Amino acid sequence: MSAKLRVAIVGYGNIGKYAVEAVREAPDMELAGVVRRPGSLSQQAPLELTGVPVVSDCRELGKVDVALLCGPTRSIPTTAPEYLAQGIHTVDSFDIHGEEMWKLRQMLDKTAKSSNAVAIISSGWDPGSDSVVRTMMLAMIPKGITYTNFGPGMSMGHTVAVKSKEGVKKALSMTIPAGTGVHRRMVYVELEAGADFRKVEESIKTDPYFAKDQTVVTQVADVDALIDMGHGVLMERKGVSGQSHNQRIEFRMNINNPALTGQIMVACARAAMLQRPGAYTLPEIPVMDLVYGDRETLIKTLV
Amino acid sequence: MSAKLRVAIVGYGNIGKYAVEAVREAPDMELAGVVRRPGSLSQQAPLELTGVPVVSDCRELGKVDVALLCGPTRSIPTTAPEYLAQGIHTVDSFDIHGEEMWKLRQMLDKTAKSSNAVAIISSGWDPGSDSVVRTMMLAMIPKGITYTNFGPGMSMGHTVAVKSKEGVKKALSMTIPAGTGVHRRMVYVELEAGADFRKVEESIKTDPYFAKDQTVVTQVADVDALIDMGHGVLMERKGVSGQSHNQRIEFRMNINNPALTGQIMVACARAAMLQRPGAYTLPEIPVMDLVYGDRETLIKTLV
Repeated sequence: MSAKLRVAIVGYGNIGKYAVEAVREAPDMELAGVVRRPGSLSQQAPLELTGVPVVSDCRELGKVDVALLCGPTRSIPTTAPEYLAQGIHTVDSFDIHGEEMWKLRQMLDKTAKSSNAVAIISSGWDPGSDSVVRTMMLAMIPKGITYTNFGPGMSMGHTVAVKSKEGVKKALSMTIPAGTGVHRRMVYVELEAGADFRKVEESIKTDPYFAKDQTVVTQVADVDALIDMGHGVLMERKGVSGQSHNQRIEFRMNINNPALTGQIMVACARAAMLQRPGAYTLPEIPVMDLVYGDRETLIKTLV
Repeated sequence: MSAKLRVAIVGYGNIGKYAVEAVREAPDMELAGVVRRPGSLSQQAPLELTGVPVVSDCRELGKVDVALLCGPTRSIPTTAPEYLAQGIHTVDSFDIHGEEMWKLRQMLDKTAKSSNAVAIISSGWDPGSDSVVRTMMLAMIPKGITYTNFGPGMSMGHTVAVKSKEGVKKALSMTIPAGTGVHRRMVYVELEAGADFRKVEESIKTDPYFAKDQTVVTQVADVDALIDMGHGVLMERKGVSGQSHNQRIEFRMNINNPALTGQIMVACARAAMLQRPGAYTLPEIPVMDLVYGDRETLIKTLV
């Protein structure tokens, strides 16, 4: 029997909390500890971390195989190399598609290879598991259009953008699918005393984060009463396999958003142990490497 | 620019025909030719193969990178090693789940490694792309139940089983999804002159292929008028990510069955070039290796 993977959780926000739960449920892993900012350590540790080492430097945790980087997306390009340089594999849920994701992969690929480590980036559900499904759909139906319809659910990025506006005390931005990859943004704001709703509304609607989508801003007395972590997606592709038209695939899910992200990061921690040194996005990894269990048995029972 | 992959199609039944179409549409491949049984070669070649080398021995086709084995499932364990021994990668759609698939993988793994070749087995849609989705679902929701609901669509295996019955001239067995992975078999038979329908019905219903499912047998005058290659699947999983319950995923598709199989085999031909020697099922291969296009661009635009 091989030893359990020792996994550290870096950052203890929403995703970090759910990542801890997923590590606890994984039969092949043990929670090495939680790494928090020095400022957070002076506070009373949350009840659910009783008995768990909570530190500000990962080196206090002894041997760590994989670090799940659960801090903000913007922190990943600086945090990941620190861990990789120590020979610790990293898994993050960096959530900016396109050029920025590619740059992160290129940068971490070099660091990882020079430290004989593995970095799995953008390992949430989109980018992440949705990316695997989109890639599979493209392989199955090479010609056609894929629509990714998000929601209904809270968008973390959009919510943060609204919170940064002057006069906004609390905010919630919901993503509502309007079909064919078009979305409506339903924004709920709780204002600071004396703030002008019309000005807040205007500054949200003209923000580049919102300018392209239909955006409805509503003032409410209590944003906290509206918050629910449920989210979803519907991906659809219709097109041509070979020379045969009208091939159709749909992938739909309704999930607790940070719970799924935490779970996928844990699956990637397992997969990190099986890859050659370097940086990977999720579609670059065999899905079989993500699941717990004996490979031979999985081939006989799952494939 | 790298040279195009030279792909041979081995067997020219339903799947072989659609595999030829998929190779023709793949920008990175060229059709090396079609390998048929010597008996088929004396017949007039089908019109759509005009200008295509049709041979009984693959060695007549010059350099071949990958052979798509489109013959019956039962022929794969003897055909695949012949090609692998020549250093030609193989892709098959061997469709028997469980122990038999695992045995094929073990056997071809040895042959492939000793010839520095790659075998990708069971590369249709189930087993195949469905297996990738089932594995991904398990990684995302480790606890729970997955239901795979097939149809409505023609089952090749069940149809062949009915055709083998005494008194049956032509047959069609349709798979009808009844939910939670339970299926009804709707069997249509065209009888030989003088055959007794009740006896045929009895022998179908007691066949191990049908005995476990609700089976309805109907006598018709013309089976050919009923045949349509449309098929589908609905895979559902509900369960727990980490410690969060009620996580739900659905994957649904409605497709031309042999066209999708041919397309997936072509995608696997591409992936075969990128794997280390050995035998693989589809979930053991990164989905990114299946698609055409520049890797860097795909990471920027698809992931």
